[in-house]
Amino acid sequence: AERIRFILGEEDDSPAPPQLFTELDELLAVDGQEMEWKETARWIKFEEKVEQGGERWSKPHVATLSLHSLFELRTCIEKGSIMLDMEASSLPQVVEMIVDNQIETGLLKSELKDKVTYTLLRKHRHQTKKSNLRSLADIGKTVSSASLLSSRAQVLLPGASQTSLFVAGGVPHSRLIFFLLKARLQFMKKLPRDAEASNVLVGEVDFLESPFIAFVRLQQAVMLGALTEVPVPTRFLFILLGPKGKAKSYHEIGRAIATLMSDEVFHDIAYKAKDRQDLIAGIDEFLDEVIVLPPGEWDPAIRIEPPKSLPSSDKRKNMYSGGENLQMNGDTPHDGGHGGGGHGDCEELQRTGRFCGGLIKDLKRKAPFFASDFYDVLNIQALSAILFIYLATVTNAITFGGLLGDATENMQGVLESFLGTAVTGAIFCLFAGQPLIILSSTGPVLVFERLLFNFSKDNDFDYLEFRLWIGLWSAFQCLILVATDASFLVKYFTRFTEEGFSSLISFIFIYDAFKKMIKLADHYPINSEFKVDYITHYSCACEPLDPGYPTVQPITRAWAARQYNTTIDWSSLTTKECLKYGGQLVGNNCDYVPDITLMSFILFFGTYTCSMALKKFKTSRYFPTTARKLISDFAIILSILIFCGIDALVGVDTPKLIVPSEFKPTSPERGWFIPPFGGNPWWVYLAAAIPALLVTILIFMDQQITAVIVNRKEHKLKKGAGYHLDLFWVAILMIICSFMGLPWYVAATVISIAHIDSLKMETETSAPGEQPKFLGVREQRVTGFIVFILTGVSVFMAPILKFIPMPVLYGVFLYMGVASLNGVQFMDRLKLLLMPLKHQPDFIYLRHVPLRRVHLFTFLQVVCLALLWILKSTVAAIIFPVMILALVAVRKAMDYLFSQHDLSFLDDVIPEKDKKKKEDEKKKKKKK
Amino acid sequence: AERIRFILGEEDDSPAPPQLFTELDELLAVDGQEMEWKETARWIKFEEKVEQGGERWSKPHVATLSLHSLFELRTCIEKGSIMLDMEASSLPQVVEMIVDNQIETGLLKSELKDKVTYTLLRKHRHQTKKSNLRSLADIGKTVSSASLLSSRAQVLLPGASQTSLFVAGGVPHSRLIFFLLKARLQFMKKLPRDAEASNVLVGEVDFLESPFIAFVRLQQAVMLGALTEVPVPTRFLFILLGPKGKAKSYHEIGRAIATLMSDEVFHDIAYKAKDRQDLIAGIDEFLDEVIVLPPGEWDPAIRIEPPKSLPSSDKRKNMYSGGENLQMNGDTPHDGGHGGGGHGDCEELQRTGRFCGGLIKDLKRKAPFFASDFYDVLNIQALSAILFIYLATVTNAITFGGLLGDATENMQGVLESFLGTAVTGAIFCLFAGQPLIILSSTGPVLVFERLLFNFSKDNDFDYLEFRLWIGLWSAFQCLILVATDASFLVKYFTRFTEEGFSSLISFIFIYDAFKKMIKLADHYPINSEFKVDYITHYSCACEPLDPGYPTVQPITRAWAARQYNTTIDWSSLTTKECLKYGGQLVGNNCDYVPDITLMSFILFFGTYTCSMALKKFKTSRYFPTTARKLISDFAIILSILIFCGIDALVGVDTPKLIVPSEFKPTSPERGWFIPPFGGNPWWVYLAAAIPALLVTILIFMDQQITAVIVNRKEHKLKKGAGYHLDLFWVAILMIICSFMGLPWYVAATVISIAHIDSLKMETETSAPGEQPKFLGVREQRVTGFIVFILTGVSVFMAPILKFIPMPVLYGVFLYMGVASLNGVQFMDRLKLLLMPLKHQPDFIYLRHVPLRRVHLFTFLQVVCLALLWILKSTVAAIIFPVMILALVAVRKAMDYLFSQHDLSFLDDVIPEKDKKKKEDEKKKKKKK
Repeated sequence: AERIRFILGEEDDSPAPPQLFTELDELLAVDGQEMEWKETARWIKFEEKVEQGGERWSKPHVATLSLHSLFELRTCIEKGSIMLDMEASSLPQVVEMIVDNQIETGLLKSELKDKVTYTLLRKHRHQTKKSNLRSLADIGKTVSSASLLSSRAQVLLPGASQTSLFVAGGVPHSRLIFFLLKARLQFMKKLPRDAEASNVLVGEVDFLESPFIAFVRLQQAVMLGALTEVPVPTRFLFILLGPKGKAKSYHEIGRAIATLMSDEVFHDIAYKAKDRQDLIAGIDEFLDEVIVLPPGEWDPAIRIEPPKSLPSSDKRKNMYSGGENLQMNGDTPHDGGHGGGGHGDCEELQRTGRFCGGLIKDLKRKAPFFASDFYDVLNIQALSAILFIYLATVTNAITFGGLLGDATENMQGVLESFLGTAVTGAIFCLFAGQPLIILSSTGPVLVFERLLFNFSKDNDFDYLEFRLWIGLWSAFQCLILVATDASFLVKYFTRFTEEGFSSLISFIFIYDAFKKMIKLADHYPINSEFKVDYITHYSCACEPLDPGYPTVQPITRAWAARQYNTTIDWSSLTTKECLKYGGQLVGNNCDYVPDITLMSFILFFGTYTCSMALKKFKTSRYFPTTARKLISDFAIILSILIFCGIDALVGVDTPKLIVPSEFKPTSPERGWFIPPFGGNPWWVYLAAAIPALLVTILIFMDQQITAVIVNRKEHKLKKGAGYHLDLFWVAILMIICSFMGLPWYVAATVISIAHIDSLKMETETSAPGEQPKFLGVREQRVTGFIVFILTGVSVFMAPILKFIPMPVLYGVFLYMGVASLNGVQFMDRLKLLLMPLKHQPDFIYLRHVPLRRVHLFTFLQVVCLALLWILKSTVAAIIFPVMILALVAVRKAMDYLFSQHDLSFLDDVIPEKDKKKKEDEKKKKKKK
Repeated sequence: AERIRFILGEEDDSPAPPQLFTELDELLAVDGQEMEWKETARWIKFEEKVEQGGERWSKPHVATLSLHSLFELRTCIEKGSIMLDMEASSLPQVVEMIVDNQIETGLLKSELKDKVTYTLLRKHRHQTKKSNLRSLADIGKTVSSASLLSSRAQVLLPGASQTSLFVAGGVPHSRLIFFLLKARLQFMKKLPRDAEASNVLVGEVDFLESPFIAFVRLQQAVMLGALTEVPVPTRFLFILLGPKGKAKSYHEIGRAIATLMSDEVFHDIAYKAKDRQDLIAGIDEFLDEVIVLPPGEWDPAIRIEPPKSLPSSDKRKNMYSGGENLQMNGDTPHDGGHGGGGHGDCEELQRTGRFCGGLIKDLKRKAPFFASDFYDVLNIQALSAILFIYLATVTNAITFGGLLGDATENMQGVLESFLGTAVTGAIFCLFAGQPLIILSSTGPVLVFERLLFNFSKDNDFDYLEFRLWIGLWSAFQCLILVATDASFLVKYFTRFTEEGFSSLISFIFIYDAFKKMIKLADHYPINSEFKVDYITHYSCACEPLDPGYPTVQPITRAWAARQYNTTIDWSSLTTKECLKYGGQLVGNNCDYVPDITLMSFILFFGTYTCSMALKKFKTSRYFPTTARKLISDFAIILSILIFCGIDALVGVDTPKLIVPSEFKPTSPERGWFIPPFGGNPWWVYLAAAIPALLVTILIFMDQQITAVIVNRKEHKLKKGAGYHLDLFWVAILMIICSFMGLPWYVAATVISIAHIDSLKMETETSAPGEQPKFLGVREQRVTGFIVFILTGVSVFMAPILKFIPMPVLYGVFLYMGVASLNGVQFMDRLKLLLMPLKHQPDFIYLRHVPLRRVHLFTFLQVVCLALLWILKSTVAAIIFPVMILALVAVRKAMDYLFSQHDLSFLDDVIPEKDKKKKEDEKKKKKKK
């Protein structure tokens, strides 16, 4: 341990040694010919072996070794010639120096020199892909990578042309190199630029009686001809030639040294070793750290897939001093809780105490990113995000517009909803602190408007003017909250509050989707009495009311008569016309509508299922990664298109998306500007401050909880949040909307999460077998902006949009609701209720908190949500936002029911992965 | 190695040592109280540890150890007191003997005797489940296990009452024991009756300066009081008390010895060891066999799930002599191919060369099982199988009956189909060689009947009589085939032929399901022009043809007039009546039928999806295993019920299953017995032998390929096949059917596979973490027999069956088609075409055969199937069975295209799992 610390520690300021590509070549007789060196395995991080029969590379896997081979390797290093920092520039030179050294030290008889040299300089044969008959998927891949080829080739050619001098056949021709490169390019992408190679050569020969062992480190990494599969300069060389009969043992030793070379710690030691003893110390360190599987509990024939995440090697590098053993099986102790709420240390939410301090800090934080907020959008993924969010926004605008029109007798309608969404959304995305947030009408606002309108009507107030004043007051109050940095209160929202809120919103989405479908079914009732054979018995005809019969609508009839001075051809009238002209619908089929309901349900469930399936396609085995990613990114759009197609094909008259086609206020009684004075008595202007307070709480809660969810650490946002700035813009936009008589807008949880999900970035895998990592979100202002511009333009896109059936959009709503429940810890805990102990996943809180406490926590959360749900469905809905504040209080009360240790695991904004990492870090610190 | 062979080999005739339950107890201060021994982990095969925080058992996992702890353990065994075959009957006695021994050998100072004894006799605290608040799933489980309790308790009480004497609290009360047992019963089930315990006690104490180590094997396994969690007598005891400060190290050593004790080989050594050296040799053997994971490629915090299958420990026990290392990563070499076709060694298909030799052997083979063929049915699973297969059979009978009626102008119709299915099926299931085979009408037979009927009509033959003679001739030919053991030819059917045939049949099933749905949609066309608003414009009325207009059906009208002397009330007529009485349907809605098509598609896809989902529910995490298994077993029945319910709820008039309700031949022109003479000229009786030849080939191929598929080794049938006996009964039944004018029946591939799938048995898991193994199929005659009896009775069950909509049954057909493609290697290879290299699963043939050869093989198979499909769709369909013979020829021709090595991997009836095992075995033999 001392020695290793010394080896690793001495040159702390020198750059980290480059990554190694390790290749294992074995001496084999190919096709009964003379011996050749044949590549049988390679390592970047994980082992890939050549399937001899299959003529292909295996999947990357964890290199399982036998202890025996490691000990044999140790003996090899003890006995063989170790030549560190050899100065040589070609393979023959290297070989000669080794052989001479061995003869000098008496390890090799001098008469064998030629034979050994000859053997070591035999031709090298690498595993390259055969291109005769490849899988369809690979062909597709090649086409897409062909375009990359030209650009990469130029980068690689300098090195490659050097290689060409040593190509076995000796044809230094650039086209040949180009051809060779083509096959290897795919793999080269996995290696960093400055990678170096280590070559392991093992084999059995008949002329040796004792093994010939050498470990060489070159002074400078050198291209040793066709020694290496890829044009990477060689730094290390391990040679083991031994007497006949132990080929398998040699193979295992070769695998052992190759695995060691790809080990991060030994790799460092190999670069820095001064002598044989350092290398042996490195092997011993490796042996100490090794993980042992009992032979009876594991089948060595199983290739272990690389794990999802790996422990950092720093831990090992810093650990020798402690002398403590590695804890196996996740026994890592947890040193007490660290309190609920993970915002405490979040810089955005610290209270400045100065006037507008938070706002100014937000501006300062976001300003440097403003330019990048525009060019960061450049990716095909953005297109998918725009289309998806656009459709969600439009659907939302239509739904809420329709509901608003209904609630306010068209004082605000679909067109206002469109205009408002477009204007506020676009401005917000351009200037707000967190442009990933999507503004939308929300349920609580709608409820408030409904109550306000009724109140105005009952008291003979001018609704729009009253509303304008409430809006102005509320905006003013919001601005005060901004100026006083009130958003710092957000840090009292813990995971409990957040997940409660977002789950509730998701449930409402799901519930609404089904409610709309049921309403639709009610609107187009199915005739369940229908019998095919009795088709002649069903009819519906428009008939004039019997003139002698007292009509219910004399005025309408009179009007109709006035309009059409001629006799009405009753049978040619549509249902609407019939009723309009005072006719009546006669027949047993009038109340029924065929096909539409069933078709709607097909479209609804179809769209949902298809979206889900396509989204999951990313993890399927089929097609190359890029194709899968594309399909997954465009899952929702594809589903919408598919089911619009099916709808068009079947041709049933399902209800379609109706977009207003004229640009004028829904109600003819109002204009685009609401005059602030004149409609109501003067005291109303002041009294409006009281309902405004409710609106302010509502806006603040709705906006900030969504913002907290969007800014969660697990989204790995890099450009910082802007809680104060966001609220500032919401207030400003509220003023505009109030004056124009448009609905008010706040952050919409589900759509914002959908927005983020559709913009997630992952690494292109580096070493084969390594898992792609979630890198973060494409933080920019463009997608949102374009979405809202498109929403505005939609008014003119009615001819296209009218082909989208509403059930398809409801299906998308259902999908969004369900998808936003994903990864919510609350849902995981709900699922635990149905799982027997032994099937429960290995959540970190289950390791540390007794199951009954976990269930109690879940139960309390369910009760809270149920109460909120009931509240939402009654008139009390208007105090809904206040009740969310109550969630914070409930959470506070839980401190008395649960230990801080339990709460730290159950209620914490830090997601699982980070948690485990944090534990590791803590442990590390403790060790230090 | 020598020593181990000696240890293990010496008492080869003695019984195998009993299974061990290993428990690790650590000395811990509980709740700040005095020290106690607390159980922290346990082993049967895999490790389960106590989650300290979670107060629960972890999932069973592979015990990953550190090399360090193993070496420390080795030192412990070297230095501690080893006391083998100690004679003691209580813990205090054991402890005293150990302590005395240590003092004698000078390892322990005598003044510490009391302290050590006191510590070792401290109270033991075991991990038991808290029952306060359990997951819902667990509660369900308890209820079901409660009934088991009473029976088990009696078995356990004798041992338990012994335990009670030593229970820490000292309350030897049977009710307490009963209560304790209740919690542990669940776990006791996992242990065999004769299991023994090994207790590992490790802990740190402040009074020791050097560790106190003891390994004890008792002469007789003894209940050492509350030492062990479960009432199992203790055989081994490992004690490690050490000075303060190295608790973690002790813990790891404890885990290491516990893991060793649960290792099959060391466990044997421990039982047979004579002295310390034997134990050390055992540890060394373990170390030699250990599998090592490099620290940089694996995270020790990951708990490794137990593998699906484990290598047999026999391999290890027999391997020391070889001195060769274990090959890692599945490098096991494959020594050449072993020819296509896995029937070669199959006893059933050997040619006897004697008259009826095969038949007699079949009878001899099956006779001993005849009784068990009846009582083996006793399982709830059989009920599900009966319902599922019954519905499939009934649907098939109706479908084929309908088609036959259509093809033969009702000379054979639905009722004949029902009667024939019931009679032949029941007789076959009672007496045939392979009662798992389900007889049914098949496509080729149907095609033949159609051609035969047309030929008879054209030549004025009596169809039924002609058919009777063909049947008799064909049956005679079949009997000749039986007598000459011709079924031995079956062994030339390789995987290529089988999978080609069964895939084709599956595709036909899938294709037919969709074809029927499309036909249904054609029959109930949707009015795609329908607009909700124009409902008044759609009508359909029955009107008399204009009397002045020349009618097309004067006779019918006249007949109608005669029948009903009164005037016809045209508007009250149904469509059928309208047309019957010579009216006409007037209106633009007459050609359309609302809702039915869409509802049918909902039912069709719904049933399919639901069946699939429920079938997969077995592998879900929710609910206890028994509940999941039940749901999965009844998946199809549940789906049918659910969608019948939905259909009834919506109330749309979807086409329902129509079962004949009267027992009489479909055609009034025929009876239940076909007279053999009189209808045709005499030479026809002889000429019938020629078409009979075709029927014979058809019957033989259809029957025997299905039989081969059913008898595949992967189904692990234990009662043997009966190819000759099967064909014998098919021939006999053909005679009966011919005389009664019923359709001919052969084995139906898809339904037979479904039958087997629904009767598969798996082990109840033994050690926690071990995978359930597929044990075989419930081979019996009862399910099939009952299915056919029910089919017969169905004629009287029309009132119930008429609620089942046809689309639901088509959905079941689709499910059966898709399900029978599962696990077919051909399908796996087809999927490979779409997979990029790196995502391809680790099939054994991919390791040994180049991908392009695999694809070429697949391609040839696809071409063959495409040709067969085309053939099937043309008139040439009648020679379809002959063409399947051509598949055998194609396969033979492949010998020239592929190497035997490749073919041995690609075309072999031995499935994957067996293959790998076989390789292992071969290797073993080679080693020997």
